[in-house]
Amino acid sequence: MPNSLPTDSVGSLQSVGVVTPQIIHFSEPLLLACGRTLSDYQIVYETYGTLNANKSNAVLICHALSGHHHAAGFHSMGDKRPGWWDAYIGPGKPIDTNKFFVVSLNNLGGCHGSTGPASINPETNKPWGPDFPKLRVRDWVASQALLADALGIEVWAAVIGGSLGGMQAMRWALQYPERVRHCVVIASALKLSAQNIAFNETARQAIVSDPNFCDGRYLEQNTLPREGLAVARMIGHITYLSDFAMGEKFGRDLRKGSFDIGSDAPVEFQIESYLRHQGDSFANSFDANSYLLITKALDYFDLARDYNDDPVAAFKLTKAKFLVISFSTDWRFAPERSHEIVNALIGANKAVSYAEIESQFGHDAFLLPDERYQQVFTRYLNGVSQSCV
Amino acid sequence: MPNSLPTDSVGSLQSVGVVTPQIIHFSEPLLLACGRTLSDYQIVYETYGTLNANKSNAVLICHALSGHHHAAGFHSMGDKRPGWWDAYIGPGKPIDTNKFFVVSLNNLGGCHGSTGPASINPETNKPWGPDFPKLRVRDWVASQALLADALGIEVWAAVIGGSLGGMQAMRWALQYPERVRHCVVIASALKLSAQNIAFNETARQAIVSDPNFCDGRYLEQNTLPREGLAVARMIGHITYLSDFAMGEKFGRDLRKGSFDIGSDAPVEFQIESYLRHQGDSFANSFDANSYLLITKALDYFDLARDYNDDPVAAFKLTKAKFLVISFSTDWRFAPERSHEIVNALIGANKAVSYAEIESQFGHDAFLLPDERYQQVFTRYLNGVSQSCV
Repeated sequence: MPNSLPTDSVGSLQSVGVVTPQIIHFSEPLLLACGRTLSDYQIVYETYGTLNANKSNAVLICHALSGHHHAAGFHSMGDKRPGWWDAYIGPGKPIDTNKFFVVSLNNLGGCHGSTGPASINPETNKPWGPDFPKLRVRDWVASQALLADALGIEVWAAVIGGSLGGMQAMRWALQYPERVRHCVVIASALKLSAQNIAFNETARQAIVSDPNFCDGRYLEQNTLPREGLAVARMIGHITYLSDFAMGEKFGRDLRKGSFDIGSDAPVEFQIESYLRHQGDSFANSFDANSYLLITKALDYFDLARDYNDDPVAAFKLTKAKFLVISFSTDWRFAPERSHEIVNALIGANKAVSYAEIESQFGHDAFLLPDERYQQVFTRYLNGVSQSCV
Repeated sequence: MPNSLPTDSVGSLQSVGVVTPQIIHFSEPLLLACGRTLSDYQIVYETYGTLNANKSNAVLICHALSGHHHAAGFHSMGDKRPGWWDAYIGPGKPIDTNKFFVVSLNNLGGCHGSTGPASINPETNKPWGPDFPKLRVRDWVASQALLADALGIEVWAAVIGGSLGGMQAMRWALQYPERVRHCVVIASALKLSAQNIAFNETARQAIVSDPNFCDGRYLEQNTLPREGLAVARMIGHITYLSDFAMGEKFGRDLRKGSFDIGSDAPVEFQIESYLRHQGDSFANSFDANSYLLITKALDYFDLARDYNDDPVAAFKLTKAKFLVISFSTDWRFAPERSHEIVNALIGANKAVSYAEIESQFGHDAFLLPDERYQQVFTRYLNGVSQSCV
C-alpha cells in the first residue's frame, strides 16, 4: 500500500492521536473455504472512536493487498507517520471518529501481527511458510465476523474498503446480509481481469524464482527472498500509479549520468531509483508467503461465481445500501469495473450511490486526499451516522 | 517479439520462400555515441526481392526489442515458422518483394548472429558480457548505414520499423536525411514515458537480481539467468497485449484446479501458464545482456533531446516523407504518442500520412494481419514503388 500523506501530526485536533494495537486470540477452529481448519489463531486490530450504547455506530475497515490494521493515528508521540488511511479516518474526517466506532484489523494470512505464514505452526513449532492454508476473501470475512462477535457488534453501520478491501466489503454484504447496513466499495471490481491476474502471476514468479525463496521455507533457512519480493513490488507499484502521474512526478528526469555524446557514464532516471527504493523497502517489511497468499485470494475472488456468473443474482441476496467510488485514471481497477458493480446493483434493485472522481493518481487515488472524494465520502457517511440510533 | 501468424507455407506464391542469412564483417572501427569504438564486428542480415539497376528500390526493415534479421520466409523447406513480419513482407504483400529489395538485419548488440554481448571479445578471448559497449539507437543507424554502403545502397526508398524499429526509422531520417526517401514509423514514440521506463527497469531488475546473472558474466560461469529473463519477458509480454485481448483470449479460464468449497487443489488460470510459457521460451533463446542493452537503448532514445527538446526543430532537418501508424488499444505506445510525431512533422512542414488502426490486439497489432492496416501500408508503399525510378 502506498504511503498516505501525513496530513496531521499526532497532537492535531483532526487526528485520533496515539493508538495501541490490540490482539485477540481465537481457540475455536475456523473452517476455511479450502476445507482445512485454522485453530488457535490471533488477529491484531485497532479501534478509533467510541462504540455507542446501542452498538449501532461500528464501522469496519477492510484493507488492501499490502495494508494492515494501522489505518489511522500514530503509534507513539514521536511517530512521524500516521496510519495508511489517516486522511480519511479521524475527528471531522469522512470516517468521523466523533460519530463512528471504527475497527481496523490485519487480515489472517497477513504479516503485521495476525496469524499468517510467518507465524509458528503449533503442530511443527516451525513457521507455517508454504503450509499455511490458502485463504479466500470469504475466509477473511468469516474471521472478521468472529472479531465483530467478540467486540459485541451484531450489525456494522458500514463495511468499507478500497481495492481488495472493496471485495471484502461486497463479500460481507453477501455473506452476512443482516449484519451490514451500508457497504462502501472503492476502486474495486467484481473480479480480476486476465491482465490483473497476469501482473499478479508475474510478481509471484519473481518471488518463487528467487533462490532464497527455498520453496517458501526461507524463514527456516534463515534467509529472505528479498530480491524477488522487491521486483514483485515494483511490478505492483507501476500498476498503482497512472502513466500521467508518473510522467508528472518523474518524467525523464535523471538522477545521475549524462546523455552527452562520448560519455560512458551510466544514466539513471529518477523513476528507476524511486521504483527500486519502493521495492527494497517493501522487501524488508513484508512476508513473501503472505504476498503470494493475498495475491492468490485476489485472483480467486469472483463475487458472482457461485451465482451462475450473474452478479445481479448475487447482489439480490444483499440487504445493504451501497456507495461505489472509482477514479478516472485508475487502470488497475478502472471505472468500468465499478460500472459493472453499479449496474449489477441497479439490476438487483438495490440502493446505490456512485461517484467517479477525476484524479491523476491512478489506483493510488483511493488513499490520497482529494476534495471531491472527501466530500462524496463525508456526505454519504453523514447519512449513515444519522441512522445510527 | 511475439510470434507472427504463419500466413503462408514455404512454397506459397505469397512467400519469399527459403532464405539464407548472410554475414558481413566490418574491420573498420565504429565510433559509438558512448565514446568507445567497436572494431572487427559482424552483422547478420537477410534480403528479399531484387535490387533494381538504379538501386532505387531498397527498403530497410528495423527490428524491435526482441526481433532479428529473419523477418520473412523460411530457413528450410521443412521450416514451419516464417520470419516475424512474414504477414507484411513477400510477393503481393504490403512490402512487396516483387517491387522492393528488402534488407533486414540483426542489430549490433543483439543475440541472433550480429556481434553482441554473447560474442567473443577479441581482446580477452572471453564473451564480452557486461563489457560490451552501451549502444544507442544512433549507433544502430550508423551501423545500418555501413551495411547500406556495403550493399551499394546510397538511398533507401523507405526505412520501416515498428516500436523500437520506428525509433530507428525516425533517427535515420534525421541522421542521414539525404539517404531516406520515405520513413514508416509504426506503433512508436518520440521517447519513452516514465511508465515505459519503469516497466523496463523492473524487467532489468528481475534479470540482474537473478544470482545466475553473475554480474553479467554468466557465460564465463557456464550458467544463464533464465529465471530472471523469464520474469522480464512476462512483464514485457503483458504490455504488448491489450487488457481486452487478454480477456478475450484467456478470460478467467482455468487450466487446472477448482474453486469448489472444500477443495484444496491449487487453481491455475490459463493466462498464468501462457505467460510462464512465454517467459520460459524467451529465456532459452535470448541473451540477458542483450536484453539489458536493448532496453537501455529504448529508454535513452529521445529524438528531440539534441534539439532543445523540440521535435519540430528535429524533424525540420529531415527530408523524407512519412507514414505514421498507431493502434487503438496499444497502451505501450498509445496513439497519443503517434499524434506527437505527426504534430511535430506537421509543425516542421513535412509530408506525413497518418492512420490509427482500430485493433483489439494492443502493441502486438503491428505484427498481426489486419485488413485496414494492410490496405494503408500497401497503398502507401505502392506510391513509394512508383517513384523508384
